[in-house]
Amino acid sequence: MNAGIEHMVPVAHRMGIRIIEVLPGRVVGEVGLEGNTNHLGTMYAGVIFSAAEIIGGVLSIATFDAERFYPIVKTVRIRYRRPATGTVRAATWLDTATIASVREEATANAKADFALDALLTDESGEVIATTQADYQLVRHGS
Amino acid sequence: MNAGIEHMVPVAHRMGIRIIEVLPGRVVGEVGLEGNTNHLGTMYAGVIFSAAEIIGGVLSIATFDAERFYPIVKTVRIRYRRPATGTVRAATWLDTATIASVREEATANAKADFALDALLTDESGEVIATTQADYQLVRHGS
Repeated sequence: MNAGIEHMVPVAHRMGIRIIEVLPGRVVGEVGLEGNTNHLGTMYAGVIFSAAEIIGGVLSIATFDAERFYPIVKTVRIRYRRPATGTVRAATWLDTATIASVREEATANAKADFALDALLTDESGEVIATTQADYQLVRHGS
Repeated sequence: MNAGIEHMVPVAHRMGIRIIEVLPGRVVGEVGLEGNTNHLGTMYAGVIFSAAEIIGGVLSIATFDAERFYPIVKTVRIRYRRPATGTVRAATWLDTATIASVREEATANAKADFALDALLTDESGEVIATTQADYQLVRHGS
């Protein structure tokens, strides 16, 4: 999956975003501070955003049939809660009932919308940011 | 200003985000596609987000007294409207009445919140994305 990110979204790879856990319905990623600082020496907002967004895309690929469908992101709302002074961990998940209904709708209609939250925490578990995003699963060639 | 971005937010510089117009209350930036693609060959969502976010920070620095105050971003909502297949231009602005009231509040309270919209367009002027963000101007040392 990390080699896939390097190939498909090289800018996310250059930020150092890496996937550390991937299951259908659950993805966890991490990104370090080095090279990713802002004017205050903490992690740049766009890197925190990208960590949350990438794990959403990976969750879609890991959960739905990637041979038939690809994800697009439609909206994201991010709320920054505290500055990140070290590695940030990003987690997202989708429950089995939602997975089943998205699969069914995408098969029937060639696309299906789904909402995805992500939680970003620091090494002590404190919340750095939260995101709420709307993705769409789209059938290749549709 | 671009040298400042390179120094202060190196990851944004590495994305190729550059400021092309800066006035008190108005900032325009640009970012190219090269190195910034996603799984579909269009511009990665996190790069579009970062272009919008960086011009917000630059607007704050260009508009308010950067010797006394620095900006932090609290929330951003981004809505992706169409894929970007080339250079993206990002513009943001703040009207003079809002600038005056933010200055007054920051001087009185050591901080002041302000909302900032950004419009992201492609080379033909089509809207790629829009953002609505909440920033806070904070007095150094407070």
